Amino acid sequence: MALLHEDRLFPAEEGTRAIARRLYEGIRALPLVSPHGHTQAGWFARNQPFPDPVALFVQPDHYVFRMLYSQGISFEELEIGSAQIAEPRKVWRIFASHYHLFRGTPTRLWLDFAFQELFGMTERLSAATADMYYEAIESKLATREFLPRALYERFNMEVLATTDSPLDSLADHAAIRDSGWKGRIVPTFRPDSVVDPDFWGFRMNVKALGTMTGEDTATWRGYLRALAARRQFFKTLGGTATDHGHPTAQTADLPEAEAEWLFGQVLSEEADAAQQEQFRAQMLTEMARMSLEDGLVMQIHPGSVRNHNAQIFARYGRDMGADIPQPTGYVEALRPLLNRFGNETALTIILFTLDETSYSRELAPLAGHYPCLKLGPPWWFFDSPEGMRRFREQVTETAGFYNTVGFNDDTRAFLSIPARHDVARRMDAGFLARLVAEHRIDEDEAVELAHELTVGLVKRAYKL
Amino acid sequence: MALLHEDRLFPAEEGTRAIARRLYEGIRALPLVSPHGHTQAGWFARNQPFPDPVALFVQPDHYVFRMLYSQGISFEELEIGSAQIAEPRKVWRIFASHYHLFRGTPTRLWLDFAFQELFGMTERLSAATADMYYEAIESKLATREFLPRALYERFNMEVLATTDSPLDSLADHAAIRDSGWKGRIVPTFRPDSVVDPDFWGFRMNVKALGTMTGEDTATWRGYLRALAARRQFFKTLGGTATDHGHPTAQTADLPEAEAEWLFGQVLSEEADAAQQEQFRAQMLTEMARMSLEDGLVMQIHPGSVRNHNAQIFARYGRDMGADIPQPTGYVEALRPLLNRFGNETALTIILFTLDETSYSRELAPLAGHYPCLKLGPPWWFFDSPEGMRRFREQVTETAGFYNTVGFNDDTRAFLSIPARHDVARRMDAGFLARLVAEHRIDEDEAVELAHELTVGLVKRAYKL
Amino acid sequence: MALLHEDRLFPAEEGTRAIARRLYEGIRALPLVSPHGHTQAGWFARNQPFPDPVALFVQPDHYVFRMLYSQGISFEELEIGSAQIAEPRKVWRIFASHYHLFRGTPTRLWLDFAFQELFGMTERLSAATADMYYEAIESKLATREFLPRALYERFNMEVLATTDSPLDSLADHAAIRDSGWKGRIVPTFRPDSVVDPDFWGFRMNVKALGTMTGEDTATWRGYLRALAARRQFFKTLGGTATDHGHPTAQTADLPEAEAEWLFGQVLSEEADAAQQEQFRAQMLTEMARMSLEDGLVMQIHPGSVRNHNAQIFARYGRDMGADIPQPTGYVEALRPLLNRFGNETALTIILFTLDETSYSRELAPLAGHYPCLKLGPPWWFFDSPEGMRRFREQVTETAGFYNTVGFNDDTRAFLSIPARHDVARRMDAGFLARLVAEHRIDEDEAVELAHELTVGLVKRAYKL
Repeated sequence: MALLHEDRLFPAEEGTRAIARRLYEGIRALPLVSPHGHTQAGWFARNQPFPDPVALFVQPDHYVFRMLYSQGISFEELEIGSAQIAEPRKVWRIFASHYHLFRGTPTRLWLDFAFQELFGMTERLSAATADMYYEAIESKLATREFLPRALYERFNMEVLATTDSPLDSLADHAAIRDSGWKGRIVPTFRPDSVVDPDFWGFRMNVKALGTMTGEDTATWRGYLRALAARRQFFKTLGGTATDHGHPTAQTADLPEAEAEWLFGQVLSEEADAAQQEQFRAQMLTEMARMSLEDGLVMQIHPGSVRNHNAQIFARYGRDMGADIPQPTGYVEALRPLLNRFGNETALTIILFTLDETSYSRELAPLAGHYPCLKLGPPWWFFDSPEGMRRFREQVTETAGFYNTVGFNDDTRAFLSIPARHDVARRMDAGFLARLVAEHRIDEDEAVELAHELTVGLVKRAYKL
Repeated sequence: MALLHEDRLFPAEEGTRAIARRLYEGIRALPLVSPHGHTQAGWFARNQPFPDPVALFVQPDHYVFRMLYSQGISFEELEIGSAQIAEPRKVWRIFASHYHLFRGTPTRLWLDFAFQELFGMTERLSAATADMYYEAIESKLATREFLPRALYERFNMEVLATTDSPLDSLADHAAIRDSGWKGRIVPTFRPDSVVDPDFWGFRMNVKALGTMTGEDTATWRGYLRALAARRQFFKTLGGTATDHGHPTAQTADLPEAEAEWLFGQVLSEEADAAQQEQFRAQMLTEMARMSLEDGLVMQIHPGSVRNHNAQIFARYGRDMGADIPQPTGYVEALRPLLNRFGNETALTIILFTLDETSYSRELAPLAGHYPCLKLGPPWWFFDSPEGMRRFREQVTETAGFYNTVGFNDDTRAFLSIPARHDVARRMDAGFLARLVAEHRIDEDEAVELAHELTVGLVKRAYKL
Repeated sequence: MALLHEDRLFPAEEGTRAIARRLYEGIRALPLVSPHGHTQAGWFARNQPFPDPVALFVQPDHYVFRMLYSQGISFEELEIGSAQIAEPRKVWRIFASHYHLFRGTPTRLWLDFAFQELFGMTERLSAATADMYYEAIESKLATREFLPRALYERFNMEVLATTDSPLDSLADHAAIRDSGWKGRIVPTFRPDSVVDPDFWGFRMNVKALGTMTGEDTATWRGYLRALAARRQFFKTLGGTATDHGHPTAQTADLPEAEAEWLFGQVLSEEADAAQQEQFRAQMLTEMARMSLEDGLVMQIHPGSVRNHNAQIFARYGRDMGADIPQPTGYVEALRPLLNRFGNETALTIILFTLDETSYSRELAPLAGHYPCLKLGPPWWFFDSPEGMRRFREQVTETAGFYNTVGFNDDTRAFLSIPARHDVARRMDAGFLARLVAEHRIDEDEAVELAHELTVGLVKRAYKL
């Protein structure tokens, strides 16, 4: 018995499945290229063992605890928000006895992969197997083979990008480089904390940015110089990209004097909501301008309503599984930036969405025209088999494959990375197999495309 | 020859179909649980024969006459709106000779099921078979086996919920209870007529509510007490749920004084459209508060533009097949209610939509987080094979199966109930079979899920 | 070896594919009915050879050059915008060496069809085969068999509609009629240039309309009479339809005095954007009124943001592949027109969309009720295998097949017409085959429907 079937996620129709198997065989062993995610450089800098099963699989994973919470299990029971888990085995048993809730979700696929491939489990997680799982995981985590660097190598990773604040010293990245270890862990410049006036501590953050760079960030020009300096610093440690998580995709292209004035408003906390939005909008265009200068690839992740649950936010803070997508427009929102830089072939902007209606209506037509635009893979709730299928079905006919950029695992759950890439490779193989089975492309083309979707496009798009 | 094939609606691929057949076998004979619909308690109270085929299949069924109307057949020809049908056989022939219009629609599936399973038809309805059908149906309707209570038993129904105004005396429900008949027909509290200022006769209705309960419904507090009293009364006759059909999903949570003032405005007909909307919004939150107190499950059916066809409305009134969906947002609309009650595990709010774009973008993420939220099945135009497939494909990966509530037949066409449940069971079996065939869940899990989707989840969610 | 497989686009599952093959066999050789498109009557009036491969396949085809442009190939390299192509063979090589970009797009399907069926190619286009292709195409284009009229006959066309300005003299159409050639090339009345105040040269156009008709188009009544006169003239040359390409689907039904005043505003260029929009809205209702009088079928193509790329527009003008869809509402937008004419059975309005979210939420419910409304086939970016599949899956259950109007090739690429019809026939055969395989309709019904979708519905809807 096994948790994973070797044909999982392939189309059921035999002819198509046979093609999918062949395509997958050609890519299954390729190295993992991870250009965007939320793992911690410190793990690889310090190379300490991961803690117990709950701290690894339950506490940090929104996907897991949001589902449990939705079914009436409290954060108290799960010890969410506790610095130290008092009764990890008890929490683990709660999780295990509710494992059926994850049927049909990608979380189930990712977890089963880790359970089998890393911990050798063969029976499904349940109340009955909870303790057996707990002990097996706990004991393996204590071994040398489960240290972060060993796992990175075992996962056959070629590169792993983290996501970092401009205020981060990147000391962990530097320590990795200085350690002589060959793993390639690169930072990504994510300036939300210093460009979004709504971000907690924005004013202090801008001030700290000044201190860090020796620029006068109380002035618009000094502020821009400080950002440019930090971007440069990220590059010295291997960074190739920036990332921007705004509520909308709105951009602006204001005259300099107006931008300067607006900066004064947000800095003095006199800006209203519309001005704050306009400032974020302007900053996307400023970031695009800097990208043209320094070559960093730009990612935009818009459309999440953060911290929708007021009570949970008040008590537990950010990132508690209560971020909800909202309708997101791109056609008018991106126009100011595109009017300025849309035709630059030296610029790469990778667009993501949480609003699937934009795939065929807006994103594919935009990326199928503007040289600077590429489409990121299905994100967050849509990083899933059906989500990936919809993305390819709705995007490919207008944007083709070559205006997309391969897969992002985009996770803070390091142990789920191989599982996530495996799902993407299988779904791509299955999608391509259908095109071959329906005689829309030939199999030799599908072989080439499978390779492109797995490593080629991602390395070229992210300059890795 | 037969109208129905035993493999209908199952996926064509043989391996998947074999799994679907097995899953369906496990649930096909389970009792029908109908927690939401629009049948009439009076049928079961009086237990009189249903009238002729036209009064049964054509006149009351929007799905039927809207399609005929869209193809140029007038309401006059169909005798829609006539209290007494003058030439039922002529109307039936019109319907029969246009039966091809329903190809590819769920109406066709429901009708064929009733024609074959209840009336023994084996040839397709057409101009040629119109009279044969008419006579066969007419003669069977006159028999004891076709009385409402006999059909309820023959359908193997466990419970059937009606939808009722707070102003309804529920005399029919009481009569059923007092009759000693074992059928379980329960009312549902649908207060649109007394909480929606746009509802025809709103002011009079609120007054009647006062008379009925002995409360002074000219005051905010009296009005709320009256509503609470009627809810209690519905509970005494077996009611477990409320239902709310608003143009949008907007909620509000006003300070009491403001709510009181707003009530004064709407009652004195001085409220503008925005205030009327705000009143409906406030009432959803009031209803949620009462649900926490009395335990009634809350259903919200938003997003229909009622009576879009002005000429038809002027001449024939409401419910003439001219209600059209509109874009419906949930993320901001539900926020006031969720801020107040979203984390209550004792509260159940079942959300429906006519805007399929909300499935993956808003509804699944909300229901996959908030303990009080569950997702109702695909509604109205989407109560169909493709509609059900899209619902499962777009909802399951984020919300799982356990934040959904099984099937609603939601019909006023009593004879279509077994057909509708059969379609749902077949589509669920087919969807689960695909997950099994693609090795995303195991078959023993699918067996359990099929049972949950058919009876388990619905009985727990609706407290039946 | 061949570019095209005889089973292309059919579902992979063997049983379903066998049904699809049978259905397709019944329709593959039916004549092509092309009720809407953008070919030029002049080709058939003059019957001159088509120029070189680049002028035929690259320069005029947005689908082709937008994809190349999105991947960093400049318009200069492609000689887009040049009156005379200086180095056609060099441009062809660029195109050929990037042919892989079209994998998974409909363009690839259309081109391969033309390459094989018209030019006898059997090897895929690539850098290696570029010259061989160029020479083969060039030499064939010089032959008598490739003259426009010969191709029309070879394509087995029954009728081909062009799209024409009211200011067009239709001299080419008249010349064709007078030539004695039997081909049926009919004009379509597309008045955007004289009803859309945003259209380049609007005022001059309205004046020219007056000159052309002898009406005083400086007055509202004269303007309307002039439009009616041109409609009549189009009818005399075989026209059966009008077409309207507006940014939105907004309609209006103003009192005459208000409409008259508004006309004065737009004519004097004093109208603001909202008034311009209202004028377009009013004109849709005026056109519907005229259609009731003269019997012309009305097509509405809303929702495209034209010329999104400001730099490209400034340098190259309109129609350069930079038109992007936007969200498009129909329920409120069409209400004024429908309130006035929605119940007229003698009126036909064919609705198109670039916003697929409207299929199931708005368009199918509207067309499934109003007698005057029909749904046009998937348009532009959605004239593709997946686009067609989504259209049928999302529309059929509510609107049925009979509220749709068959296929439009809607192309300016004359040589792609047979390929486009072939894709549509195959996709319809495949969709119907699935319904048969899932026992939702019987095969004899599918045979009838396949014929209707191919020729019956289109000829009846467009009165051809």
